[in-house]
Amino acid sequence: MNRLTLALDVMGGDFGPRITIPASLQALEQDPMLDIMLFGDSRIMSPYLANIPHHLRQRISLHHCERVVKNQQGLSHALRHSKGSSMRLAIEAVRDKRAQACVSGGDTAVLMGLAKVLLQPLAGIQRPALVSNIPTIDGKQSIMLDLGANIDCSAETLMQFAQMGAIFAENSFNLVYPRVALLNIGIEELKGLKNIRDAAALIQQQTQLNYIGYIEGNYLLNGHADVIVCDGFAGNIALKTLEGTAKNIFGLLKNRNARPSWIKSGLKKLLVPCGKYLLKKYAGQLSQFNPDKYNGASLLGLTAVVVKSHGSANQAAFLYAIRQAAWQVRSDIPNKILAGLEKK
Amino acid sequence: MNRLTLALDVMGGDFGPRITIPASLQALEQDPMLDIMLFGDSRIMSPYLANIPHHLRQRISLHHCERVVKNQQGLSHALRHSKGSSMRLAIEAVRDKRAQACVSGGDTAVLMGLAKVLLQPLAGIQRPALVSNIPTIDGKQSIMLDLGANIDCSAETLMQFAQMGAIFAENSFNLVYPRVALLNIGIEELKGLKNIRDAAALIQQQTQLNYIGYIEGNYLLNGHADVIVCDGFAGNIALKTLEGTAKNIFGLLKNRNARPSWIKSGLKKLLVPCGKYLLKKYAGQLSQFNPDKYNGASLLGLTAVVVKSHGSANQAAFLYAIRQAAWQVRSDIPNKILAGLEKK
Repeated sequence: MNRLTLALDVMGGDFGPRITIPASLQALEQDPMLDIMLFGDSRIMSPYLANIPHHLRQRISLHHCERVVKNQQGLSHALRHSKGSSMRLAIEAVRDKRAQACVSGGDTAVLMGLAKVLLQPLAGIQRPALVSNIPTIDGKQSIMLDLGANIDCSAETLMQFAQMGAIFAENSFNLVYPRVALLNIGIEELKGLKNIRDAAALIQQQTQLNYIGYIEGNYLLNGHADVIVCDGFAGNIALKTLEGTAKNIFGLLKNRNARPSWIKSGLKKLLVPCGKYLLKKYAGQLSQFNPDKYNGASLLGLTAVVVKSHGSANQAAFLYAIRQAAWQVRSDIPNKILAGLEKK
Repeated sequence: MNRLTLALDVMGGDFGPRITIPASLQALEQDPMLDIMLFGDSRIMSPYLANIPHHLRQRISLHHCERVVKNQQGLSHALRHSKGSSMRLAIEAVRDKRAQACVSGGDTAVLMGLAKVLLQPLAGIQRPALVSNIPTIDGKQSIMLDLGANIDCSAETLMQFAQMGAIFAENSFNLVYPRVALLNIGIEELKGLKNIRDAAALIQQQTQLNYIGYIEGNYLLNGHADVIVCDGFAGNIALKTLEGTAKNIFGLLKNRNARPSWIKSGLKKLLVPCGKYLLKKYAGQLSQFNPDKYNGASLLGLTAVVVKSHGSANQAAFLYAIRQAAWQVRSDIPNKILAGLEKK
């Protein structure tokens, strides 16, 4: 494994340093070849770094910034006022080759906007996409793009997503000729929006792509496709609905208060320990659907690796995003996409 | 309860009479004030009606039709060739006042197209919508529209969906001033597509609507809104993703083959009966998320009640669709929507 340095936007996401710093320490423990640059308010970061072992502390560098990017007054306002912010400085560290990748839980649109300006899209890519792995019922994973970076996409853009997604899936899952599908509201050729039908025609012409047709929302988890292509609006709605549904069902399973009252009745008490044991085992099996295990959407189509952590990510989820960034750097994903596109 | 007659398209859906006729018989058993007209191929229907009790048989009328509507060559072709089909004859029975509502599991676009022509939209409604109840984590329900009838919607159309949805929710859930939200990919005002932002501005001007802002896919099940408004493309993607995720997780819980091998080991055998019991109880609690329990999207904004059953509906789900149609007729939903819109 290569030694690598990640630049983390500590202040991004709903919980900031409370989540991002413990996750960083965990990542350093797990990956001895990793160094981390932390970008944030040093007064807020410092307490989280007191009393940590020397062998971890020496692989961390603190980079103070006064500001945090907000996106409440529109994207262009946010971009104009991003100088000196934790997110921008983290991306600049990648641009200046002080780090190999950046992870942020900040606003997706601002992250994409800054990354496009500072890191540049790969040659030939007009619109980088937001991509994520999603779990499938057979214990494997699919990848899905775009998830919100481009809410309105032409047929050509969707075709480019299919190309980038196929290369990402080949490398992520060690696949040859991954199956590519377009998200739509039916499987018949005539269904859906015009740009999707046009994209289907374009993708079908690309013989290097294994296009299998349309896929509907209810089959996203069934592993029918390795790459699911959609515009960022539909993708964002689908991914968030998927996550929300899974989280809510897990919540019901876990929530003690939601347990029916019969559990407390005397006769049944005997059953509870056995049942708890069994439920725990089942929960393990179901955990593939835990969104924490596939947090970290990646900005695909840039010259360097940028991973966007879910704003509401917990420590485990932010750790996953860090590991995803490290994997992409070590797998040389940007160059593989460039090479793949040039071949085509 | 009023006596009422429903016209059922027996041939629609993936399973046809094998599902629709047993569900009809169950509906007749449960609802003594119900009569049913069955539209389909009598050679296929008859075997399912042999040996049924006389008191049920006399509340059924069979209406033979040779044809079934298919939508493989485009909507206009399907509509032109719909004469004499089970779906069209069922809708015509409603138009001719021989039945008060129609239920079909056939193609949504054809059903909507025929219903618009034969039954007409209510005065002032440009585009009827497909609406369905969705379960919420607190054991209640929200309603969502449009779910696929109108894939491309103007801001005005979305506002009209909000108005119809609010009236439907008032009556469905006995609510005063139901909370209305627009499905979007963020909660900030500036997020999403232009037609959604424009719809937000229009809906906010309607003081009779309790508009609460945008809702994201991950909160669809949380009961934050009573009415969730979106275009048919996003709604279809969201609803199907929700259903697919829930079905897949239930599948994992139920699937014997997916059980880990430790279950078979000798020592653990003792635990299985207890665990099965407990899982069954939990499953009961989770069953609010079973899509069978909220099958039946309704065509809202027409002069009569039309319910679209899910194409893959099983018997329980088709039964739910029948009961939903009966409820809407008895609640006089079309007239309540008309009255509500006229007030506004």
